[in-house]
Amino acid sequence: MARPFVSLLTDFGLRDPSAAICRGVIRTIAPDADVLDITHEVPKYAIGDGAYLLWCALPYLPVGSHVAVVDPGVGTERLPVALQVARGDVLVGPDNGLLLAAAERLGGAVAAHVLEEAAYRLPVVSGSFHGRDIFAPAAAHLARGAPLEAFGRALAPTELVPSPLPRPRPVPGGLATAVVYVDTFGNVKWSAMAADLATSLGAILPDDALVLERSGGPAVAVPWTTTFGSVGPGEGLLYEDSYGRACLSVNQGDAAARYGLERGAEVVLRRA
Amino acid sequence: MARPFVSLLTDFGLRDPSAAICRGVIRTIAPDADVLDITHEVPKYAIGDGAYLLWCALPYLPVGSHVAVVDPGVGTERLPVALQVARGDVLVGPDNGLLLAAAERLGGAVAAHVLEEAAYRLPVVSGSFHGRDIFAPAAAHLARGAPLEAFGRALAPTELVPSPLPRPRPVPGGLATAVVYVDTFGNVKWSAMAADLATSLGAILPDDALVLERSGGPAVAVPWTTTFGSVGPGEGLLYEDSYGRACLSVNQGDAAARYGLERGAEVVLRRA
Amino acid sequence: MARPFVSLLTDFGLRDPSAAICRGVIRTIAPDADVLDITHEVPKYAIGDGAYLLWCALPYLPVGSHVAVVDPGVGTERLPVALQVARGDVLVGPDNGLLLAAAERLGGAVAAHVLEEAAYRLPVVSGSFHGRDIFAPAAAHLARGAPLEAFGRALAPTELVPSPLPRPRPVPGGLATAVVYVDTFGNVKWSAMAADLATSLGAILPDDALVLERSGGPAVAVPWTTTFGSVGPGEGLLYEDSYGRACLSVNQGDAAARYGLERGAEVVLRRA
Repeated sequence: MARPFVSLLTDFGLRDPSAAICRGVIRTIAPDADVLDITHEVPKYAIGDGAYLLWCALPYLPVGSHVAVVDPGVGTERLPVALQVARGDVLVGPDNGLLLAAAERLGGAVAAHVLEEAAYRLPVVSGSFHGRDIFAPAAAHLARGAPLEAFGRALAPTELVPSPLPRPRPVPGGLATAVVYVDTFGNVKWSAMAADLATSLGAILPDDALVLERSGGPAVAVPWTTTFGSVGPGEGLLYEDSYGRACLSVNQGDAAARYGLERGAEVVLRRA
Repeated sequence: MARPFVSLLTDFGLRDPSAAICRGVIRTIAPDADVLDITHEVPKYAIGDGAYLLWCALPYLPVGSHVAVVDPGVGTERLPVALQVARGDVLVGPDNGLLLAAAERLGGAVAAHVLEEAAYRLPVVSGSFHGRDIFAPAAAHLARGAPLEAFGRALAPTELVPSPLPRPRPVPGGLATAVVYVDTFGNVKWSAMAADLATSLGAILPDDALVLERSGGPAVAVPWTTTFGSVGPGEGLLYEDSYGRACLSVNQGDAAARYGLERGAEVVLRRA
Repeated sequence: MARPFVSLLTDFGLRDPSAAICRGVIRTIAPDADVLDITHEVPKYAIGDGAYLLWCALPYLPVGSHVAVVDPGVGTERLPVALQVARGDVLVGPDNGLLLAAAERLGGAVAAHVLEEAAYRLPVVSGSFHGRDIFAPAAAHLARGAPLEAFGRALAPTELVPSPLPRPRPVPGGLATAVVYVDTFGNVKWSAMAADLATSLGAILPDDALVLERSGGPAVAVPWTTTFGSVGPGEGLLYEDSYGRACLSVNQGDAAARYGLERGAEVVLRRA
């Protein structure tokens, strides 16, 4: 029988001991759990980046307990929560919107509970490290079979803090969309899925030219292609990335630097 | 029965192959061992940072064999050692003070041996990579049940090179304390525990104001609080961190940058 | 019985979700596989760095399936391949030279197959993420016992794209050699093995002085030693590193910065 599966995603960084301590806490409570680090390099306090990365990763991971901690509100009134989703996973983390895009992608939240039961926390809960004291222990106890209902009172999914990720917005003749993530290659990930673009602009064929407009900046034309190799090294391309998302890249280059785009920047995409 | 547990902490970095090679060596010798990376991003040659991080992590990890390598003296006369501690763990690494704070926190060293037995090393020992050739094999053989006494001659704990971590020092009306670590959020970790501060200054209550004095610089007042959320975003706070240590932070900001503090900087903390 | 072993080496970085997704795909297909990350921090698109790092690591890892992805040509005509080597491992990745130095070091490729069988890929293969869609699934199916021949048509090893790593070149009175890698300590790794140097210059003894000449720059003398501790802190040394390779270091310092050397720089080494 397969070992219970736990994943971790945080903004703790890999130099500090925090991520390893969460793993150690899980190992101590649930020695059989198989623990996978999604990433601990989410930009500090960037709930949107964390939400995006969790959305990317979870569909490719086994069903299990998934801890996510990007938590600028640790030690305030924000609730620690766990969400059961339709696929069967439980997502564990702060109630600040971090978990919702991924929950949606796994079929939507079917139950939500506050993590308040002392038996499923470490004996002493600090005001600054709930990853160690509340979230990692919760995932470990879930991996051992503790029922979600036992962790605390139920919340209606509508009571949860909503996702910080923006949605694309149709405008006359185009689609307004924002940068939700810039990856380590400099690829720019839009809030729009490729399907959203097709809905607004009609079916887009390889080598159709699109125009990217920024308020206050010049419009630039970029071809829609199916793969990096369709353009020369150093040239820009728009395409459906491997998650179905609209993406702007430069073949073997850094699109965010080339086009001066950062997380949150909004553009309008139109046909040329 | 739980798999034997091994942890690794080094300054090898995650780009180079060294950390993975140590894991591979352990996997080859002890295929059942469960290996956890504490961190491989200790700043290069920074024995004090490594000692601090090991002190943080080990209490939250299962009992096992823990390899730590921050080793500017590799290839010199410094000894490779293993320390058994009261909790039952064995700490493995260079005799340069790296292991001692963590050993103390796990109840103190009860035995120390030099790693000189050839049967517990790789067949060829290089002059520049003892992590691979001596320390990782030692941890793997310990995980398989090799007795510590078999590794080499005993040392008295008093013969070991002492810890590089400074201790706080009472001064008239205050406590002199140094920065032992700056974490990836910019939080400043002092050599003083919160209890040391209370011993010097009397019980400190939330919202008491403390003053931080640096030689040659202006004194700054910072409130003592229990959690980040007690001050506004961008404001400074002093508090007991989740390890019991006195810590200087900025809510959602970088305290080391704000206050111009680096590892080793000494301040005096007083009541305002 | 030991769990099947899989390793991963990529230029995906540790912030993005790609590396974790590859692990998740392997875990889903082969839940018993023991997966080790060699590194995900290969400099972007640097096939030579990836080839060097794989060459370093694989001899110290258990026999298994090893996935390597540094793949600027993803989505072009370049083939996805798997190479069986004499030691018994299978190396999986793009046919761009990345795998060949490591294959050579494990006894040489004894068979090569194209990864074209749909049953051993994810159901949908994207144009930009073959690590997830082709390479990780291949390694997982190999770990479960799928025979290499079943993955696709055989290639002669001579049909593969050759290794990008340069070889040293004898010149009158010396050996011309290039930088193949600069590690995170700033150590400079040459294309020449220590044995190559001895072949060109005769046996080299500790404290022999060598001269390093760069076209257009002054020659510098550096002692040949056996270990860092043979020179003072901040002084340069040439030596045989722990992999048998000729290496230029500065004791507790950064040799690449000191000597102004980057990947690809060529020098001539001579006796002083």
